[in-house]
Amino acid sequence: MPDIDPANKSMEEIVALCKRRGFVYPASEIYGGINGFWDYGPLGTALKNNIRDHWWKQTVECPPIGPDGEPVSIVGLDSSIIQNPKVWEASGHVGGFNDPMTMYKECKKLLRADHVWYVFYGNPDEIGKYGEDLTGQGVDVRSFFSDVFALEQLPPDERQRIINEDANLKQALGNTESLPFLIKKAVLAGSKEEAFEAAEFSSKQRKAIEKHGAKPLTTYPLMVPDRAWDDGGSLCPNCESRDSLTEPRQFNLMFESYAGAIQSAENKVYLRPETAQGIFLNYKNVVDTMRVKMPFGIAQVGKSFRNEVTPRNFIFRSREFEQMEMEWFCAPDDSPKWYDFWKHERMRWWESLGVSKSNLRFRDHDEDELAHYSKMCVDIEYKYPFTAPGYGELEGVAHRGCYDLTQHQTHSKQKMEYFDQERQVKGQKAGLSKDEINAQSKYIPNVIEPASGLTRGVLVLLTEAYTPDESRASKVYMKFKPKFAPIKAGVFPLVNKDGMPEVAQKLYMGLREKFACQLDAKQSIGKRYARMDEAGTPYCFTIDGETLTGGTVTVRDRDSQSQERINIDKVEAFLDEKMGE
Amino acid sequence: MPDIDPANKSMEEIVALCKRRGFVYPASEIYGGINGFWDYGPLGTALKNNIRDHWWKQTVECPPIGPDGEPVSIVGLDSSIIQNPKVWEASGHVGGFNDPMTMYKECKKLLRADHVWYVFYGNPDEIGKYGEDLTGQGVDVRSFFSDVFALEQLPPDERQRIINEDANLKQALGNTESLPFLIKKAVLAGSKEEAFEAAEFSSKQRKAIEKHGAKPLTTYPLMVPDRAWDDGGSLCPNCESRDSLTEPRQFNLMFESYAGAIQSAENKVYLRPETAQGIFLNYKNVVDTMRVKMPFGIAQVGKSFRNEVTPRNFIFRSREFEQMEMEWFCAPDDSPKWYDFWKHERMRWWESLGVSKSNLRFRDHDEDELAHYSKMCVDIEYKYPFTAPGYGELEGVAHRGCYDLTQHQTHSKQKMEYFDQERQVKGQKAGLSKDEINAQSKYIPNVIEPASGLTRGVLVLLTEAYTPDESRASKVYMKFKPKFAPIKAGVFPLVNKDGMPEVAQKLYMGLREKFACQLDAKQSIGKRYARMDEAGTPYCFTIDGETLTGGTVTVRDRDSQSQERINIDKVEAFLDEKMGE
Repeated sequence: MPDIDPANKSMEEIVALCKRRGFVYPASEIYGGINGFWDYGPLGTALKNNIRDHWWKQTVECPPIGPDGEPVSIVGLDSSIIQNPKVWEASGHVGGFNDPMTMYKECKKLLRADHVWYVFYGNPDEIGKYGEDLTGQGVDVRSFFSDVFALEQLPPDERQRIINEDANLKQALGNTESLPFLIKKAVLAGSKEEAFEAAEFSSKQRKAIEKHGAKPLTTYPLMVPDRAWDDGGSLCPNCESRDSLTEPRQFNLMFESYAGAIQSAENKVYLRPETAQGIFLNYKNVVDTMRVKMPFGIAQVGKSFRNEVTPRNFIFRSREFEQMEMEWFCAPDDSPKWYDFWKHERMRWWESLGVSKSNLRFRDHDEDELAHYSKMCVDIEYKYPFTAPGYGELEGVAHRGCYDLTQHQTHSKQKMEYFDQERQVKGQKAGLSKDEINAQSKYIPNVIEPASGLTRGVLVLLTEAYTPDESRASKVYMKFKPKFAPIKAGVFPLVNKDGMPEVAQKLYMGLREKFACQLDAKQSIGKRYARMDEAGTPYCFTIDGETLTGGTVTVRDRDSQSQERINIDKVEAFLDEKMGE
Repeated sequence: MPDIDPANKSMEEIVALCKRRGFVYPASEIYGGINGFWDYGPLGTALKNNIRDHWWKQTVECPPIGPDGEPVSIVGLDSSIIQNPKVWEASGHVGGFNDPMTMYKECKKLLRADHVWYVFYGNPDEIGKYGEDLTGQGVDVRSFFSDVFALEQLPPDERQRIINEDANLKQALGNTESLPFLIKKAVLAGSKEEAFEAAEFSSKQRKAIEKHGAKPLTTYPLMVPDRAWDDGGSLCPNCESRDSLTEPRQFNLMFESYAGAIQSAENKVYLRPETAQGIFLNYKNVVDTMRVKMPFGIAQVGKSFRNEVTPRNFIFRSREFEQMEMEWFCAPDDSPKWYDFWKHERMRWWESLGVSKSNLRFRDHDEDELAHYSKMCVDIEYKYPFTAPGYGELEGVAHRGCYDLTQHQTHSKQKMEYFDQERQVKGQKAGLSKDEINAQSKYIPNVIEPASGLTRGVLVLLTEAYTPDESRASKVYMKFKPKFAPIKAGVFPLVNKDGMPEVAQKLYMGLREKFACQLDAKQSIGKRYARMDEAGTPYCFTIDGETLTGGTVTVRDRDSQSQERINIDKVEAFLDEKMGE
């Protein structure tokens, strides 16, 4: 089977298989579920653990070889989900981890205000006319914006070239601002008034708009087509009139709670929205107790919580999710080298899980897209069925500068400065002055952060594996790379008698110490293969009459469905080899 | 070194080593910490993962052999921490997971009201006198209660014999109630009035008490001496007067939050106080999708949260902790057999981690101690330094009957009944009537629950391993069973030159795929051994001059400190063998 483009896979079918085969169940399903939460069933838990363990092994126990040919140094951590609330003030999450929210007045549906575009038009049939009125450019607003959308997809140089060549466009967009910035300024305004201001309409234009109606339109998906999935900004299904939105207000994405018997302000705590801050909190402890030296990393896997307004797309955006994050600390002047190193290292890692190269891509963040503290950021994106033909985030590799440690230093009054002895010695040998040496060897480290979603990794492997095949009994099979399959081997007595179950159990007992495997003696062999196809079990070993006489078993290959006979004593070595591939 | 009794180990020293060597750090330490939360450092995370992975392997992938000689069947699960709030109404946690709380009026310190005993006395120097007044038995209250405390330690028969022989005691205690019940009724009352009622004091006695003062005294630790650790009911250090307590009020131990933008009653959610309910929620999903048949288990490891009023004793009682729970579903009439099976199986498991038998014990719960739904319950207890010479809980094995599934059936209106096909076939073969067959083959399963604290397991292994030894440079070493040591092997070039680092790195790179190990080239070899002693690394391999000429390395054994030479090619086999022990 050639690989199938995720664009041609159905999320509904994947979700159904996940439920049917015990990968993922809706949380609290017997109570009608709960929006944004999922439970991992027996197979999903195994798949998730396999990804987690592989990441941990490749990050903490067997970290990659660095640019100098030596393995880099990374230690593990498991910090608490609930921390002192001051942490989130320092990190900026209490002040800044907000989405501006607006609500449809009639049906109370919430949506993100920055995903509402104020597009000005009156009667849609007369849009051209009002468009002319408004822009004064002889273009209607709709085509104007669709030009802009198209432009945004282009590389900056090419974009500028086109703008320069088109006088109308150039005048409309101005030339003092970068294009995306202008779009946000003019159109992604939180309120109509702001939009008026930003677009610099004349008072005459404003009056025309007011007269004919200024209506907010949720067109964010139009702007970045490959993110339509992300912010699902479709019109409220309950609410025809599009200008009934409340003024936006800030909404914090952190779950709040209280630690202690009294629900007072001083007892307020938050569920972490990222595992990263737990690492920064322990940076000093690790430096003081673990004999690490720059550069080094601290890694952790764990749950995070975000009170998403609109959780969606299965386990892609849930309110409770799992992250695999590593903070790489290094000298500021080494940081570009390490940014580049981790960017490519992480892409290699995802490929090593069996994800097709053609379904992965880098997306460098534009400057205006970066968080204010971030110097560079690149997403590793995957072509999810709900983003295809576009891509959506799987992992972000961010250059966070010294922002976090500096913030914690300021708020906690604890010195985060690192003294780099190696640089000192180097400086002394080079005959530098004391001041020069100090300047080079005392610094607050810069941080490169490869941060990925473990639960998104599960979704990617589920999507990659999902392979419809009408020719099979199961009509679909899960083509996991053997190493990541929840069950590595099925062990089947052909019939549940004649001594076969005993031989099968013996084989199973020998294998299970090393490989997650399943002994199954019931139903027809075809049904058992079909079930294992849906579970993604790469190999099934069947004990039959010949096993009892000749000592061989059949191995059935999941992908080719072909069978061969091997000696029962060779099964372990067979699996060993396949798992290493 | 003979094993040291935990009674002779100092928690303070253990906590200090945990910090110093990166096992456990206080959470948010740079912000002054946060009461009841801990972060696991690089070594603590490795230790915790080792226990977790071993439990998972022995529970889910290689479950034990059952009484019939075949391996039992257990599947894994990973359910969400936040569930539909109806779950906690059904489970009884919203209504019942409460502690009655009282507070010192002056300093606002909270304590559990049911740990406050209303002991009636006036001037302590005159206690005998008031005691006589109050009991009318010619005994002072203090000696009366100390008799009662002593009695409680005795087996019921013996206890009754003594009561029967002592007319005063008999009259004081009455004979209609069981002793523990009476004590609770009379003394563990939530308020003074209740205590008056319960103790059935005459109005004259009450007046005498009022006159001389009725003072609450936190004496819970006296009653069950080996649980003094558990409820730390010492007097408030800030507050001399012991009668300034508020009336008790109910305090729910679950952390509350809101899912969704609006903090309304319908959006209220809870952080799970146990992983168990996530399993019951998915019982039906697992039965429907995983082809399991009775009896079978569902296991999960994960974080739970309890808003403890007084978190204490390091990681023993924290507000965020990790559990390893398994729910074993079986036919009601098979449940006593399985209760017994899991009780002993779990004890064996803890012993397999290298915990001394003499530091573990069973404690069967008395009938009056059981939760109302529980038929039997036994704790596996460990002799913690803060409980010694007594013991404290490590794991509970509970017979939960059909309580949970029945509750969820009632609240969710989803059928939890299981149809046992094997029993049907058996009944048909035995020629039973349809009604008889139905009675045997349709049932709501009973549940046996072995539930342990993963983070308590970490504390037990830390305590067991902690071994002071004045003769060593480190003065202490951590005697982990090799399989559970955070670092299995140190790899040291004797000096950081002459080709030794290269050989060491090659050895390290070969070993690290299989064993968590550490390459360390700096400082004197003695210092490196000392550090590894504190980390609990069982073996250190040193590359020296002879390695370069003869191909052998020294192996230094952590416990004996003895060294031997082995061929460098045999290091992997050496470790393989040791890890299997």
